Amino acid sequence: LAKLTKLTKQETTSVLAELEDWIHDPERDALLRDFTFRDFNEAFGFMTRVALLAEQADHHPEWSNVWNRVQILLTTHDADGLSKRDVDLAKRIDALLRDRH
Amino acid sequence: LAKLTKLTKQETTSVLAELEDWIHDPERDALLRDFTFRDFNEAFGFMTRVALLAEQADHHPEWSNVWNRVQILLTTHDADGLSKRDVDLAKRIDALLRDRH
Repeated sequence: LAKLTKLTKQETTSVLAELEDWIHDPERDALLRDFTFRDFNEAFGFMTRVALLAEQADHHPEWSNVWNRVQILLTTHDADGLSKRDVDLAKRIDALLRDRH
Repeated sequence: LAKLTKLTKQETTSVLAELEDWIHDPERDALLRDFTFRDFNEAFGFMTRVALLAEQADHHPEWSNVWNRVQILLTTHDADGLSKRDVDLAKRIDALLRDRH
């Protein structure tokens, strides 16, 4: 597993520049992204794919869903903030959406 | 589909007595319940079963998940508060948990 060191401020800035669809929640030191789909079916289908990624990575999101909307918050409890695990999971989630057709 | 009339105060009181594991969120006029499972696998398995119930009923929860915990909020946007649909879905969710073995 990726090491759990908390990202430095400089690393966080660099990560946010790379993950352009995610914002930084300074209170939680977390990555945050809102997703909108056509309907609940598509939103929950996406959540299922993310759930499988999360289990595979043994790193899980804090997330919520209201019909066609999903909000995902990524942070690492053991690092007390953002770690490489969050960045890796965010990239894998973004890749899922790029794969849609 | 069940009618979308908002429940009266008296009906809400009666429903809450029946649904003993749910509390009433007065601000949202919603049913609210927290669930705790062994791990993410079990929590997301539960969410998948609820998602199928929700699609079948064409009535969807507002919900969140953090690892082994799930919070479900039920209210009816079209009724501007609690309706029979929420009560029916809450009962079906409770039945899922009773069926566990």
